Amino acid sequence: MAHPAPVTDAVRHHDPDVRGFASDNYAGVHPEILAAVALANGGHQVAYGEDDYTGHLQEVFRRHFGPRAEAFPVFNGTGANVVGLQSVTERWGAVICAASAHINVDECGAPERVGGLKLLTVPTPDGKLTPELIDREAWGFDDEHRAQPQVVSITQTTELGTCYTPEEIRAICDHAHERGLTVHLDGSRIANAAATLGVPLAEFTTDAGVDILSFGGTKNGLLFGECVVVLNPDRVRAMKHLRKLSMQLASKMRFVSVQFEALLAGDLWLRSAGHANAMAQRLAAAVRGIEGVTVVRPVQANAVFAILPREVSERLQKSYRFYFWDEASSEVRWMCSFDTTEEDVDSFAAAVAEEMTAGPSPS
Amino acid sequence: MAHPAPVTDAVRHHDPDVRGFASDNYAGVHPEILAAVALANGGHQVAYGEDDYTGHLQEVFRRHFGPRAEAFPVFNGTGANVVGLQSVTERWGAVICAASAHINVDECGAPERVGGLKLLTVPTPDGKLTPELIDREAWGFDDEHRAQPQVVSITQTTELGTCYTPEEIRAICDHAHERGLTVHLDGSRIANAAATLGVPLAEFTTDAGVDILSFGGTKNGLLFGECVVVLNPDRVRAMKHLRKLSMQLASKMRFVSVQFEALLAGDLWLRSAGHANAMAQRLAAAVRGIEGVTVVRPVQANAVFAILPREVSERLQKSYRFYFWDEASSEVRWMCSFDTTEEDVDSFAAAVAEEMTAGPSPS
Amino acid sequence: MAHPAPVTDAVRHHDPDVRGFASDNYAGVHPEILAAVALANGGHQVAYGEDDYTGHLQEVFRRHFGPRAEAFPVFNGTGANVVGLQSVTERWGAVICAASAHINVDECGAPERVGGLKLLTVPTPDGKLTPELIDREAWGFDDEHRAQPQVVSITQTTELGTCYTPEEIRAICDHAHERGLTVHLDGSRIANAAATLGVPLAEFTTDAGVDILSFGGTKNGLLFGECVVVLNPDRVRAMKHLRKLSMQLASKMRFVSVQFEALLAGDLWLRSAGHANAMAQRLAAAVRGIEGVTVVRPVQANAVFAILPREVSERLQKSYRFYFWDEASSEVRWMCSFDTTEEDVDSFAAAVAEEMTAGPSPS
Amino acid sequence: MAHPAPVTDAVRHHDPDVRGFASDNYAGVHPEILAAVALANGGHQVAYGEDDYTGHLQEVFRRHFGPRAEAFPVFNGTGANVVGLQSVTERWGAVICAASAHINVDECGAPERVGGLKLLTVPTPDGKLTPELIDREAWGFDDEHRAQPQVVSITQTTELGTCYTPEEIRAICDHAHERGLTVHLDGSRIANAAATLGVPLAEFTTDAGVDILSFGGTKNGLLFGECVVVLNPDRVRAMKHLRKLSMQLASKMRFVSVQFEALLAGDLWLRSAGHANAMAQRLAAAVRGIEGVTVVRPVQANAVFAILPREVSERLQKSYRFYFWDEASSEVRWMCSFDTTEEDVDSFAAAVAEEMTAGPSPS
Repeated sequence: MAHPAPVTDAVRHHDPDVRGFASDNYAGVHPEILAAVALANGGHQVAYGEDDYTGHLQEVFRRHFGPRAEAFPVFNGTGANVVGLQSVTERWGAVICAASAHINVDECGAPERVGGLKLLTVPTPDGKLTPELIDREAWGFDDEHRAQPQVVSITQTTELGTCYTPEEIRAICDHAHERGLTVHLDGSRIANAAATLGVPLAEFTTDAGVDILSFGGTKNGLLFGECVVVLNPDRVRAMKHLRKLSMQLASKMRFVSVQFEALLAGDLWLRSAGHANAMAQRLAAAVRGIEGVTVVRPVQANAVFAILPREVSERLQKSYRFYFWDEASSEVRWMCSFDTTEEDVDSFAAAVAEEMTAGPSPS
Repeated sequence: MAHPAPVTDAVRHHDPDVRGFASDNYAGVHPEILAAVALANGGHQVAYGEDDYTGHLQEVFRRHFGPRAEAFPVFNGTGANVVGLQSVTERWGAVICAASAHINVDECGAPERVGGLKLLTVPTPDGKLTPELIDREAWGFDDEHRAQPQVVSITQTTELGTCYTPEEIRAICDHAHERGLTVHLDGSRIANAAATLGVPLAEFTTDAGVDILSFGGTKNGLLFGECVVVLNPDRVRAMKHLRKLSMQLASKMRFVSVQFEALLAGDLWLRSAGHANAMAQRLAAAVRGIEGVTVVRPVQANAVFAILPREVSERLQKSYRFYFWDEASSEVRWMCSFDTTEEDVDSFAAAVAEEMTAGPSPS
Repeated sequence: MAHPAPVTDAVRHHDPDVRGFASDNYAGVHPEILAAVALANGGHQVAYGEDDYTGHLQEVFRRHFGPRAEAFPVFNGTGANVVGLQSVTERWGAVICAASAHINVDECGAPERVGGLKLLTVPTPDGKLTPELIDREAWGFDDEHRAQPQVVSITQTTELGTCYTPEEIRAICDHAHERGLTVHLDGSRIANAAATLGVPLAEFTTDAGVDILSFGGTKNGLLFGECVVVLNPDRVRAMKHLRKLSMQLASKMRFVSVQFEALLAGDLWLRSAGHANAMAQRLAAAVRGIEGVTVVRPVQANAVFAILPREVSERLQKSYRFYFWDEASSEVRWMCSFDTTEEDVDSFAAAVAEEMTAGPSPS
Repeated sequence: MAHPAPVTDAVRHHDPDVRGFASDNYAGVHPEILAAVALANGGHQVAYGEDDYTGHLQEVFRRHFGPRAEAFPVFNGTGANVVGLQSVTERWGAVICAASAHINVDECGAPERVGGLKLLTVPTPDGKLTPELIDREAWGFDDEHRAQPQVVSITQTTELGTCYTPEEIRAICDHAHERGLTVHLDGSRIANAAATLGVPLAEFTTDAGVDILSFGGTKNGLLFGECVVVLNPDRVRAMKHLRKLSMQLASKMRFVSVQFEALLAGDLWLRSAGHANAMAQRLAAAVRGIEGVTVVRPVQANAVFAILPREVSERLQKSYRFYFWDEASSEVRWMCSFDTTEEDVDSFAAAVAEEMTAGPSPS
């Protein structure tokens, strides 16, 4: 296709044909998303969320999450989590979460520093909380010496690539609500969960009792942008003030909102997530067949966690960037994204196989 | 040019031919910027700033601000200010600024709440600090009861549409440095200042002694994005940690960086700002000729501040959205942007003239 | 009475007969307060406020402030203010106060840093807010860009030694409540106000509409200790949690509470404050008679503000410690306390007179 | 001794002969401490720490902790910890501590909320960190997504009544320093540790490499008051500003300082702590002899942790207030203090024995 080069003083610095398995946010923007941004361009629109795209977006989200849902576009996932959690806690509140939760380990303390939140963390085998695990920290109500548990935060799909069933989430919500706790869901990869479960989004969120969630866009093909989605407005306060004071209010919000419209008005969200999941399954299947490589966690989303000899991983990293998940056990994480191709997977699996058969590195 | 409609499930909700004078962030994205975003798309790039575009962006900024400059892309202006100010203050620090500064009046307390910063505000006649005005708050060093003045923050161009000369900034910097204070510049509209002054960016920043600044992109035609630019690394600490903990770290940073490359590699930044400034001059000239309308502040950037009868403004607002700047005096603010046309200005000025001659509203 | 020297390894390091005019917190502890501390000693009492003294203290405060009053002992004045203000604001709230308020100028930014509070400050001629002055900042409700005004904080008596009348406070409260604002009173020197006004404490607090206040103890003869007193529990939340998380919860609280009982069960509070006020009147009268000394503010509490030649003040400071209040105008502040004697005042006034007649200092 | 009743309007509300085993801060003030407070009374002394007592206190602390020690009196233990930890961390810093640390479980999130600190917690068997346990969290240096480990905080004696040896602390300090981490010691019960170890305070602090500590006073017979003691000034910044902004600066500081002088100038600190420890040993010995009661942790300070039937504990609580430490296992904690008598211990042990032989409660 002979496109005329677009007019810009910027120049291309990268090879648009190179993809890896380091993270779903190494990928770029889905072409349909970019088309949507262009569509919303031109003319003037009221800034800070009073535009027509953000207005319309409410309807789009309500189709997925029910008639009480309210969507608040923000910049990024940490922002979505910290704004959302503030809206369901008081200054003296605490958040019960898995020790492996992104809010605990990957946000440089933003929940504590920006939100003034205390995290009450619980070790889990698979990144998933349960009513029993919640009860390890759901106590001490009214004791002023203890940061007051007010929210349970779960991640769907989890940081460990696992996926809660709707029933598991319902059990958590029922349990939390009985104890007066609100339920927050970090849905950075919520679309991958829906693809895995094969159910509508509401089935494991609104209908299961989740009160508020972060809806991930960036990892599913957006340029940037996440949404805080309020499912139960009775439990949530002052989102718009909290979004602004937390520095997550976009002035040209139409361009965040139209991306979410492009994602959610049709099935792009599900197509992209389903594809990423399928690529992870393909990758898992391929490497499971390689002697010396063990897939160590259930593959229920777009991540494959594997253990293989450290020196093999390090050799592979010369050609493919990816991360060690656990230095101690040499566990690595491989992520697939909306633009991962079957060829990408097959080539990478072949490279793994090849490096496994190579001799040990000269020391 | 007959483009095929881009494929997306989003639909256009607005009229791309309607523009107003409410704010420069009501405008959309400059086409060259959108072209740059497309250019950077495709393939995988390391997330969180290790990409090739962000790497290259350092060179682009250094051409404008000198060889020690370091650029840290962030999401928005409040974020740029609060991250930058944290990097030059301690937990016990305070920031001297004009009472009219954006950080004081328009950021919902983010500097205080996210940064833990105390603002020491000084009333000014025109939004501009001076050495004398700074001294009203530059005292009490070492007194533990007083939040410790550590930074002077100025805005260029100011919130009141005025522009510091390079000499004025140099005087402020010399004065501040003598007292051990760092100088921060909120450059949300820094390009408008360069266009007004007709000098290179460095002349009123790096060369004048400014230590760190927020470089505005969104108001000058970007989709989103601002940069914290460190000019004097000796006075600045831990930018990358502060950006992350302040929730201003974009995962797909290449798309912020390439926009800035498109803006700054050539002259787009200056063309756009110069045009917006010229439109403001055209508007000021037009309304100055209308009896009963007074342009009340110097027009040194892309803003026109005027006083006219309140009822006239309110009638105008039915067709054109704009803001009252000061409710008490019925002062209004009209902003021009990169996409404001001469016809837009002339039509609006005609509408002002027409409403001024209309009789009083029926009550 | 020949007391045997108490047994302790500490030794006396100071002259217990030297007193000055620098601050009412340079004074020591009133003997009746120390006797009360001894009375509460011995045996075990539940820590953190469940003791019998803190329980009884509620009744004592209710006698002064009405049947809905609740008292929360804390350590110091900054703590009382910041805990109290948090209890009547949300994370997005702001506090309207005089620019000269202690919370703005003398607490090292603790309201901002610990409480996350934005202060909206108003210049005043005499340290006193009025409905009109409040309206300079009581606007922008619901605008997410503006920190939301939620509280008016006044100081009684003010930092400038002036005293609100009950009518003035009532007017402020009525005005604030109409706008949905809560009223906080920093009563660091509230007893001095009651002594000046000659009315019960409730008359210018509970009955005038004040919702919550800081009741000062330390400056009126306590060893340490202030109380947050909730007057209108409908507007106040979670005091006990906020006190703890703000690090203002005393473990051996009985010893704070019994001091307040000693102060407030009888008339010690009023005797001490009335005496300090009378000494300030005596001092003002004496120095008003000295040529070249001008008492520059109304003496309505225990402070005298005067302007005299800077070199005279500096010579006086060699013998008497006191503070310059305003460096620019060489205004000084002289404070009287419960233990200031008539002889102290007369000697100091004589010293002022003597230094005024001395020639200029050799330079 | 027939003392005349001290003159005060306060009345005694409690029985000074009743003591229990709930907490060492249920006890009152040691008579020598109260005598010291009286000694420091009278006359005027500069407020906020420039008094003669606080000046002299520096020498007292240096005798114990070496010539570089600097003492900063504060109000309470939470305050001491949070002020001290801020002085050795940056805004992006994190603190490695045991999951059972007071700063993690008993301070209502004050470290996070006031200090903006992230706690990186490690489960321990006995409340004690080790180099190996520290390494579970001492990683990710320079990674902006991870709150940066900057301090190791240990508690001596621990919240579980155990005591580090000097060698154990030295190993921790060496290990921490090698990794660029500062060492903080929460010495709320540091005197009990010295009494247990039989060594000077410096031996397990300054000489072992500790950089900064909280020195407990309240639990060892003070009216109120703790000290932040800086041992290595090279690693500590701006203590006085941090103390003020954290609302821990006492105006009449002489009365905090003189208490510490009384405690530390002679051997009161050691006598009191040694006595409390001895009473705990006596209690442990007595209850170990009761069938069905198990002392479940080493008794290395003034605490005894025991498991006995829940219904027995609940019956005992009707006469003696004490706390369940772990609801799940029905573990209880009994604390001794400076004023615990042998008779107190023997009576309580007898009561335990009696309730153990009583039949089960009627349900």
